[in-house]
Amino acid sequence: MTVSPFDHPLLSGFLGDDEAARHFSVEADIAAMLAFERALAEAEAECGAIPHEAGAAIVKALAAFRPDTAKLRAGVAKDGVAVPELVRQIRAAAGAQHGEFVHFGATSQDVIDTSLVLRLRQAIDHIGLLLSENIVRLAGLKEEFGDRALTAMTRMQPAIPITAADRIASWRTPLERHQQRLKELSGRLLVVQFGGAAGTFDKLGDKAPAVRVALAAKLDLGDAPQWHSQRDALAEFAAWLSLVTGSLGKFGQDVALMAQAGADIELSGGGGSSAMPHKQNPVKAEALVALARFNATQLSGMHQALVHEQERSGAAWTLEWLILPQMVVATAAALRLAAELAGQIESLGH
Amino acid sequence: MTVSPFDHPLLSGFLGDDEAARHFSVEADIAAMLAFERALAEAEAECGAIPHEAGAAIVKALAAFRPDTAKLRAGVAKDGVAVPELVRQIRAAAGAQHGEFVHFGATSQDVIDTSLVLRLRQAIDHIGLLLSENIVRLAGLKEEFGDRALTAMTRMQPAIPITAADRIASWRTPLERHQQRLKELSGRLLVVQFGGAAGTFDKLGDKAPAVRVALAAKLDLGDAPQWHSQRDALAEFAAWLSLVTGSLGKFGQDVALMAQAGADIELSGGGGSSAMPHKQNPVKAEALVALARFNATQLSGMHQALVHEQERSGAAWTLEWLILPQMVVATAAALRLAAELAGQIESLGH
Amino acid sequence: MTVSPFDHPLLSGFLGDDEAARHFSVEADIAAMLAFERALAEAEAECGAIPHEAGAAIVKALAAFRPDTAKLRAGVAKDGVAVPELVRQIRAAAGAQHGEFVHFGATSQDVIDTSLVLRLRQAIDHIGLLLSENIVRLAGLKEEFGDRALTAMTRMQPAIPITAADRIASWRTPLERHQQRLKELSGRLLVVQFGGAAGTFDKLGDKAPAVRVALAAKLDLGDAPQWHSQRDALAEFAAWLSLVTGSLGKFGQDVALMAQAGADIELSGGGGSSAMPHKQNPVKAEALVALARFNATQLSGMHQALVHEQERSGAAWTLEWLILPQMVVATAAALRLAAELAGQIESLGH
Amino acid sequence: MTVSPFDHPLLSGFLGDDEAARHFSVEADIAAMLAFERALAEAEAECGAIPHEAGAAIVKALAAFRPDTAKLRAGVAKDGVAVPELVRQIRAAAGAQHGEFVHFGATSQDVIDTSLVLRLRQAIDHIGLLLSENIVRLAGLKEEFGDRALTAMTRMQPAIPITAADRIASWRTPLERHQQRLKELSGRLLVVQFGGAAGTFDKLGDKAPAVRVALAAKLDLGDAPQWHSQRDALAEFAAWLSLVTGSLGKFGQDVALMAQAGADIELSGGGGSSAMPHKQNPVKAEALVALARFNATQLSGMHQALVHEQERSGAAWTLEWLILPQMVVATAAALRLAAELAGQIESLGH
Repeated sequence: MTVSPFDHPLLSGFLGDDEAARHFSVEADIAAMLAFERALAEAEAECGAIPHEAGAAIVKALAAFRPDTAKLRAGVAKDGVAVPELVRQIRAAAGAQHGEFVHFGATSQDVIDTSLVLRLRQAIDHIGLLLSENIVRLAGLKEEFGDRALTAMTRMQPAIPITAADRIASWRTPLERHQQRLKELSGRLLVVQFGGAAGTFDKLGDKAPAVRVALAAKLDLGDAPQWHSQRDALAEFAAWLSLVTGSLGKFGQDVALMAQAGADIELSGGGGSSAMPHKQNPVKAEALVALARFNATQLSGMHQALVHEQERSGAAWTLEWLILPQMVVATAAALRLAAELAGQIESLGH
Repeated sequence: MTVSPFDHPLLSGFLGDDEAARHFSVEADIAAMLAFERALAEAEAECGAIPHEAGAAIVKALAAFRPDTAKLRAGVAKDGVAVPELVRQIRAAAGAQHGEFVHFGATSQDVIDTSLVLRLRQAIDHIGLLLSENIVRLAGLKEEFGDRALTAMTRMQPAIPITAADRIASWRTPLERHQQRLKELSGRLLVVQFGGAAGTFDKLGDKAPAVRVALAAKLDLGDAPQWHSQRDALAEFAAWLSLVTGSLGKFGQDVALMAQAGADIELSGGGGSSAMPHKQNPVKAEALVALARFNATQLSGMHQALVHEQERSGAAWTLEWLILPQMVVATAAALRLAAELAGQIESLGH
Repeated sequence: MTVSPFDHPLLSGFLGDDEAARHFSVEADIAAMLAFERALAEAEAECGAIPHEAGAAIVKALAAFRPDTAKLRAGVAKDGVAVPELVRQIRAAAGAQHGEFVHFGATSQDVIDTSLVLRLRQAIDHIGLLLSENIVRLAGLKEEFGDRALTAMTRMQPAIPITAADRIASWRTPLERHQQRLKELSGRLLVVQFGGAAGTFDKLGDKAPAVRVALAAKLDLGDAPQWHSQRDALAEFAAWLSLVTGSLGKFGQDVALMAQAGADIELSGGGGSSAMPHKQNPVKAEALVALARFNATQLSGMHQALVHEQERSGAAWTLEWLILPQMVVATAAALRLAAELAGQIESLGH
Repeated sequence: MTVSPFDHPLLSGFLGDDEAARHFSVEADIAAMLAFERALAEAEAECGAIPHEAGAAIVKALAAFRPDTAKLRAGVAKDGVAVPELVRQIRAAAGAQHGEFVHFGATSQDVIDTSLVLRLRQAIDHIGLLLSENIVRLAGLKEEFGDRALTAMTRMQPAIPITAADRIASWRTPLERHQQRLKELSGRLLVVQFGGAAGTFDKLGDKAPAVRVALAAKLDLGDAPQWHSQRDALAEFAAWLSLVTGSLGKFGQDVALMAQAGADIELSGGGGSSAMPHKQNPVKAEALVALARFNATQLSGMHQALVHEQERSGAAWTLEWLILPQMVVATAAALRLAAELAGQIESLGH
């Protein structure tokens, strides 16, 4: 099934990004969930929250564990989340003696949210590199064409002479601010989620804080109080993604407008037409606009999900799953396309 | 890659709908595009727009045609659409002699838009059945529990006594209106798109109208003037999808609120928790709210795509691809979940 | 206070529409609410639901009634709606003897929703006329310039020669479909809302159906079962408004793009610049794009409001108030601007 | 005219905020635009970009200047912005001799964007105080009721015992993060916009940098390169506003849910009903949900406006005007309502 172009065998090569998408595969999700359970068992054993032998047995069982995904699918259909069935399978693998110490003091949301954060960290690394690459490419364009002349267009009308460097600056400068913003928000986003059934460590007593610190350290995440019903860091990140694609959408729109008349810009490798072989369509520039408008649309849904009622909202949480992964992939795809598009600019200005 | 829950091996069993999703698989898309090319060749041969032997050769070639999907993927990455490469492959299959009559007088958008409409027709058949089933199920609930007492809740406060039938009517009545709306819009939506490079039949001369009529008839679609830069029927359909999920979202929200206190409703088969085995989470009710808010979010993007500049907007058109299939699947999934949820209601009212 | 440009003393002359806006003034709202209370008293007296002398006294009191708006404002701040305080004032005006028969069997939502529908009917009349005017203007453009040559632009690249008539058709045809859609939805939208505290006629017994029929007739609205928690007709209408502005946004975008190069179109009366006196900015064309994107944005919120929990959702209902009036005025403004813009086209094509 | 509830004589007392709204009145806008022109004349005279006597004459003329608002309204209708006409009036006031030095080297967008930033600074001061007040109020609730018992509700089902402090923390903690975020973004947002016709200081030569520094200093804003086609700081701020209302929407939703059953919370001063005098509707809690969903909806439009083509987009810029002021007022209103709601909590937990 390939309902989303980001998953589509044909369209994902254009509109998607394989490297970003693989962090949202079922394999990556399960691997991150198992990493959580392993780190939890280790942390709890170290802190004396579960017996050492249980911890060792769980770690050993997890090393060899292969989930029954058909049962996981059935579990999701029944429970709305995969974790109850996944934990049941891990408990069976760990053996009756140690089973009760698997996932000890944790709840589904701890596993799922932390798995998400672990994978967002990797996606952010990738996106950060792509962002830097774009900045470098645009600096290269300035180096090469910056002194050439363009006519400023204000309100879609010719205004006064400017240089290509002036227009390039309007593409690059926001990207540099996005780098700064990413630094600021990362500390809030890349933190562990751990709190148990209602976020209150009901089963861990006074060992809870030490377990959480150890768990975060093992996962190489920041330590923070549980945030399971406080989704602001995710909504903030979604807005950042949309800022990035919005800035790239402006770049794409500008390139498409310049390509229209044809004198201001020369692009290599434009898209072909099935009816008009002479055409060189600026398809990457157009895709940047489409991805910008896509993320701007999705952002609304991520902020609707801030109304996360009580200690856990199935409705608001599920809404995030339907939206955030696609925003991440759209952003990576836009960055990839923008870098490619910058590379296709053979000439800019006069 | 499974960026969207509608494509996800685990989550699609809960949040997706296999029957609706398969109309958006690459196989279904290619099959519909080939059906377009076959019907076009037949129609053009019948109307004398291409030689009879060419038409026969193309039909024969298409019967045995298997696309090279790796090249299609590369074609999309370059052209933004699969059609130029697909047509190239079909031309090769039809032979040098007849190749020029493949896709004669058509453009990529004719193929892609008509393929979409063909598949929407099938999806609508499915959704229409699910809609009817929901109406029947809700009528059944009224039959069984309608006379029982409930306390009306207005502004989330107890108001006055009502019957279960009163509340059930607020779930069912909108669905009946949605049936009427679907009838009204279908005539505008389920029509062929055919016009050539710029929608003006530049290659078909006075044979064009007859070809379009024949093409529409062969595809069992309505005949209509080209609409490639007029996207109102798609935006109208998207709004209809969101109306359906919105009404079901109200049903879900009401069920979840009733389940909260626990006395007004009894549900079988609630979702389990990894931390609290006693819980019966109303996960299908919550999913209905999530899918309603998802479609309400997406709808905005489909209406942004109405600003479809000039004779073809790559940006606005691509934006539709990113959104509409998911709205269709979300709607089918919501209808499936709502019917299941109605079936899980063991008791309603007092 | 003028937070919205639609209310702003300077901006509303450009982005707003006085005729549409006045249906959303506090005066128009109160007048419509009083019309509801008067028609209700008359209908109930005729049907024997309240004493004839009470009905007559209420009608007489309403004829002279002037609300204390300072108290209404305080009432809204406390109750979230004006009706409890408004009814209190009307009861005082009608006298202790008849006061209990004011608003008899009705609830705040009956008054507010019916007042909205009454005013939407007037706004729709206005919008319908503007829509017809646009169709006429575009037909005039076709008459005058239709045979001239344009170069089709597909994916923002020159494609093949077309005529101005081809492009004008892509502006006009959707408007004709919108007329058809408006007819279809009006029957669902322009109906009375009446049901009492929880929509069940708890106080009117077997006289209820006759009262509602009479009430609807007096207000010149369709009769329909209460729909206070079923908001689909409003969400459908909002989508229609966005379809209209979306189609006009395409017209605006096309004009702005043609004006950019300057050879395809000549506009009179373009906007001036404070820095560049030579410029003729196509400001009305740009405003059409802005209003299209505005309504596409708002539409999402109107569909979020479909999740209207239980018998009355203060949250979802209030959300509609924040959005729908602005969508109506945005649509009227776009139609006015589009008609003016069509009138500014001095030349189109070659 | 009162299309928006934020401007409405009755509804603004509930859904609006007078203190925030007055920064968006026409008077405040004109005052800020005149402050820009005065500071510009002073800065340019100091830096030798205009004659000293011209600077003094302009400052003197501005001190006594009263705009002809009817002509400004007509100017907006023609030009899409008020500045050309406003500058014409100021030039007339300054006298023929000095007129050319009014607005010297500036463009409409410099004036309008800087006026916006000046007023956002004041609105942010107000919002910052309201945010602090909310944090204090919630700390007070914790002090008073924190030790009491609540039943955690996860996925709308009773889970395990928690304390009121646990739930209060989920309301307060995000607000503290919002304070940190506001600090981070303010440096990017509260900067002058100045660049002339196309942002390139075409008329100021080598004096331009010094003029901008002096202009920013006089307006007490940060200095920054022109950003007229880079709207990321505004889109970032809009996301912050929606984060705030989203967090408050969760608070409102939780309160409304607790009030539903009635045992967990006692509220004073609930809203009355016109049909059911016994009711105490949690109208402020509901309004918080409505305002959260409103801002989440609007945010999408502010991010659509990031696709700001070329050196100035009339379409994207106008879209911001239609949205951002309302988001600011919605946020202030939500903060005011939340503080009031916190004050209405007479009892929380058991």
